[in-house]
Amino acid sequence: MRRSLTAAEALAVVLESAGPLPLERILVRDAPGRVLGEDVVSGRTLPPADCSAMDGYATRSEDLRGAAEASPVTLRVAFEVAAGASSGSAIAVGEAARIFTGAPVPRGADTVVRQEDTSREGETVLVRVAAPPRENVRPAGEDVRSGDLVLRSGSRLGPAEVGLLASLGRSEIAVHQRPRVAILSGGDELVEIDGDPAQGRIVSSNSHSLAAQCREAGADPFYLGIARDTPDDLEAVLRRGLGADVLVSSAGVSVGDRDYVRPVLEKLGCSLVFWGVRMRPGHPLVFGRFGERGPLVFGLPGNPVSAMVTFEQFVRPLLRRQLGHSRIFRPTLRARLAEDFRKKGDRLHFVRVRLEREGAEVVARSTGNQSSGVLRSMSLAQGLLVFPAEESELRAGSHATVQVLDESFFAGDEPGF
Amino acid sequence: MRRSLTAAEALAVVLESAGPLPLERILVRDAPGRVLGEDVVSGRTLPPADCSAMDGYATRSEDLRGAAEASPVTLRVAFEVAAGASSGSAIAVGEAARIFTGAPVPRGADTVVRQEDTSREGETVLVRVAAPPRENVRPAGEDVRSGDLVLRSGSRLGPAEVGLLASLGRSEIAVHQRPRVAILSGGDELVEIDGDPAQGRIVSSNSHSLAAQCREAGADPFYLGIARDTPDDLEAVLRRGLGADVLVSSAGVSVGDRDYVRPVLEKLGCSLVFWGVRMRPGHPLVFGRFGERGPLVFGLPGNPVSAMVTFEQFVRPLLRRQLGHSRIFRPTLRARLAEDFRKKGDRLHFVRVRLEREGAEVVARSTGNQSSGVLRSMSLAQGLLVFPAEESELRAGSHATVQVLDESFFAGDEPGF
Repeated sequence: MRRSLTAAEALAVVLESAGPLPLERILVRDAPGRVLGEDVVSGRTLPPADCSAMDGYATRSEDLRGAAEASPVTLRVAFEVAAGASSGSAIAVGEAARIFTGAPVPRGADTVVRQEDTSREGETVLVRVAAPPRENVRPAGEDVRSGDLVLRSGSRLGPAEVGLLASLGRSEIAVHQRPRVAILSGGDELVEIDGDPAQGRIVSSNSHSLAAQCREAGADPFYLGIARDTPDDLEAVLRRGLGADVLVSSAGVSVGDRDYVRPVLEKLGCSLVFWGVRMRPGHPLVFGRFGERGPLVFGLPGNPVSAMVTFEQFVRPLLRRQLGHSRIFRPTLRARLAEDFRKKGDRLHFVRVRLEREGAEVVARSTGNQSSGVLRSMSLAQGLLVFPAEESELRAGSHATVQVLDESFFAGDEPGF
Repeated sequence: MRRSLTAAEALAVVLESAGPLPLERILVRDAPGRVLGEDVVSGRTLPPADCSAMDGYATRSEDLRGAAEASPVTLRVAFEVAAGASSGSAIAVGEAARIFTGAPVPRGADTVVRQEDTSREGETVLVRVAAPPRENVRPAGEDVRSGDLVLRSGSRLGPAEVGLLASLGRSEIAVHQRPRVAILSGGDELVEIDGDPAQGRIVSSNSHSLAAQCREAGADPFYLGIARDTPDDLEAVLRRGLGADVLVSSAGVSVGDRDYVRPVLEKLGCSLVFWGVRMRPGHPLVFGRFGERGPLVFGLPGNPVSAMVTFEQFVRPLLRRQLGHSRIFRPTLRARLAEDFRKKGDRLHFVRVRLEREGAEVVARSTGNQSSGVLRSMSLAQGLLVFPAEESELRAGSHATVQVLDESFFAGDEPGF
């Protein structure tokens, strides 16, 4: 077991431990947010035939030569083509077909005149504009041709991809599985959310924030419960999580004073990979693995902020990688510091900061008390300021890297038009 | 009914039509992404007592005066305080209590020495450092005091808020309801995803992309099906959606040639508010409302890109407002144009663009064919370039506003440390 790694070393070790999970087949409607695990080749040509991009009249561009407001051309309306109709009929010289958006352009016609540029009079229509060939006509295959590689394996699936897959008649696709994350808490002082907080007992709130962090990352958390401070109880709870892809404990799986934790993990087949990361909050982080089968194991610190921050730095990137994403980290930006930041010691610090836009810049301010027990400060923070290990002071007015945790930070106050 | 509004006028009309939806009570575990509808006042003090921030020894700072590596102080270990234990016992002069993170500091003690700075020898412990009072002690109420306003109504709930609410013993909270969005398609040419695409029929893919857009916005879509091109069928399908907050049709509820659409809507009690927005794609947009009861109605154009773009511009901001969000728009940024963009006419254009970072700048390139039938181009696009109505050319090298559609655009390639 390695000890006291830098955060970068620890992250490298964690990310080496897993790649994208195997594939599963899901319904396209459930695809948003998932990562495609196959190349998708179209079996269809879309649109299947030349079709109208407008409601109007399909006709021959030749017949409209010279048509204008003052000198409209009169055509006979031979028939109507609704969207979804087959294009059996043909128009002849001097004729037009009433046509609707998406309907196939009938044989004989090579252009479509918008309804707005016409006046219908019984069986005839007056056209007040000329139109070149192919005007308002969507050619067959404009969107997709049969045999096209439409989506590559590794693509992130959003609404457009879902629509595209549906348009190809694909109701099911292969995506990388979502990591199942088993969450447990450890400690005799913990009660569930509806438990009695008498005598200094506190709610096992970490299991809630960690489960929410898992969901936000796109993973699938399940909660094992609270392990009491005995080897037997810890073993019993851990065993229920061995089918997970990742097992996340806050406190309880520390390698500190409770001597039974490591033997219990080893008895179950887990080998500890590292213990201790030179960062604050979050130093007493433990990472282990179960060899080929069994979950990767994170023993996060018990303090609420430490648990959330270590999840952010190590568990979230791992989960994003398991989901198949190529860009697995939070957005970072360079923020101007509104105040001085100081620290002692040579650990990397993650400082909870509020972020505000000022013109083209983002300005960072401390949320205040940086004690790792002050969960409220995580709620106030939009980001984590990365305070490098080797620095002891970051001056007001200088710029530093901030990880943006609040997904809504980028949302706009204005529509942009 | 107003006609041919600017996009800004249309957006203003839409947003005037609704505020945040009424409240519902949900489990805290389901809260992420929702918007709080009540002020949350703490009924608890957290931590409930002065407690240890470390595993180590609680003792009297006075007794450690002068302690150092070379001159450790020896203390008698009087008892052990586990987390969750009550702090009944007290330590006396020359004594220490073994203590674990989160455990209450026993009476008599005023400081905690980290385990790493001590050596245990049977019933005694050698302490190799001095410690001021309150070192490694989290004072009672450091996080929250009973009576504190912890979260304000209107707060967006994320993992930290979920943890905070859990720590207060709150298992249920009031949030704004999620808008239920009824989705229908209209047209005889449409088939469901598993339908037969013979004779020019196409899959009703808009219902899939729009449902995904709803989910991405945080709303709750349900699918009414395809209305065939008859008044009776349209009425039957629409009736099933009258209980929704928002009704979104793509095609079918146009006010174009099919004369029965407007009478059917009016028969059901819907009054049309506007028809036509001076934008491209998306001009034939219809917006209506049912008075006090009944859904707001959007008739989106049938072309796949037009449907998605008009959803983005009008439906999504409305849904975000109904959810209670204060910042309801997509992120926008100023991008440098990698090529010339030209347009004819005096409509606002939304141009699908790829976005790439180049140094501190974001560079925008067209996805190519901007036909509103090319759904594939929406899949290639990370953003929509806002091409102002009054401009006819945007030059390569100049800067323009882009709405960022791809949520993962901001994700990082690097962890930031």
